[in-house]
Amino acid sequence: MAYREVAIAKSLKLIEPGPLVLVATYDTVNDRPNVMTISWTMAIDWDGGIALTTGPWNYSYQALMNLKECVVCIPSASLVETVVSIGDVSGEEVDKFERFGLKALPARSTKAPLIDGCIGCIECEVEKYIEEYGIFILRASHVWIDDGCEDKRMIHAIGDGTFKADGETFDCRHLMADKLPPGV
Amino acid sequence: MAYREVAIAKSLKLIEPGPLVLVATYDTVNDRPNVMTISWTMAIDWDGGIALTTGPWNYSYQALMNLKECVVCIPSASLVETVVSIGDVSGEEVDKFERFGLKALPARSTKAPLIDGCIGCIECEVEKYIEEYGIFILRASHVWIDDGCEDKRMIHAIGDGTFKADGETFDCRHLMADKLPPGV
Repeated sequence: MAYREVAIAKSLKLIEPGPLVLVATYDTVNDRPNVMTISWTMAIDWDGGIALTTGPWNYSYQALMNLKECVVCIPSASLVETVVSIGDVSGEEVDKFERFGLKALPARSTKAPLIDGCIGCIECEVEKYIEEYGIFILRASHVWIDDGCEDKRMIHAIGDGTFKADGETFDCRHLMADKLPPGV
Repeated sequence: MAYREVAIAKSLKLIEPGPLVLVATYDTVNDRPNVMTISWTMAIDWDGGIALTTGPWNYSYQALMNLKECVVCIPSASLVETVVSIGDVSGEEVDKFERFGLKALPARSTKAPLIDGCIGCIECEVEKYIEEYGIFILRASHVWIDDGCEDKRMIHAIGDGTFKADGETFDCRHLMADKLPPGV
């Protein structure tokens, strides 16, 4: 499997569906990459702007604040058990890439790595942290897609320990042709 | 079909999956309810906090600012064509409830109505508008679920005019029992 770079605007197709994501960071304390599972994200514009909610209770928060960067990766449904397990341990004690057999690939603009085997990965800079609400404003710098990823179903967290995979597809382009942003 | 009220914490199960939503407002200029389709939302805490991105380019923005309230409704996949069409016209010129045959039901704490026939509806107060990024911080005041809704598949926008319905379910509670929030 191999990632190819696509336009920044394509990050919308990875984030807008509301998937469960893996956020890779670089932990300068332990000098290794780390990763967290999170579903509290949203697109905020058509130019690679992404909001992500977390805070100091999460070990990855410090890495986000230190290097002001991360890689948001979208895993496919076939990885659901691994993705949920990643969210259940802290990178403070565990090398999660080793524990979960994740392969870190070098990113273009971040010390945080791409994670091999995902639908896509978005290298991001931290633009701002809105402390009152724990909202990180991220800005995509490079967007990567793996066309060879066999299972393209994203995962959606229900919030109660159950998850859904993408199912039926609906093509509604004829109903909103005038509203489609360029480049997606 | 009938809505029953559930705990505020249950709003997480409606928002965390990242669904396409209908946001009902009350338009004091035209003196009628209005509704917009949007997918840029995320949960921000376990107490009914929801972030929603929009701005002055959207007619509903003024209603959100005027009355500081809205109702976030989650439509099922069977309504996808209607939901997309709702997003393609402006409530400034069109009575969308009439045009699209939507039935408005009285809400408990908002002048904006619940929309009949959805999976669930969340009455919200506007807590803050973060102008720099166009992010509304909403706070759920009443949460409604329709157990009789036959199609419980949510819709996910891909950002290119295509949409996905929820498919396969995975139960991963055994992998994250210690992380589940109370009341969901």
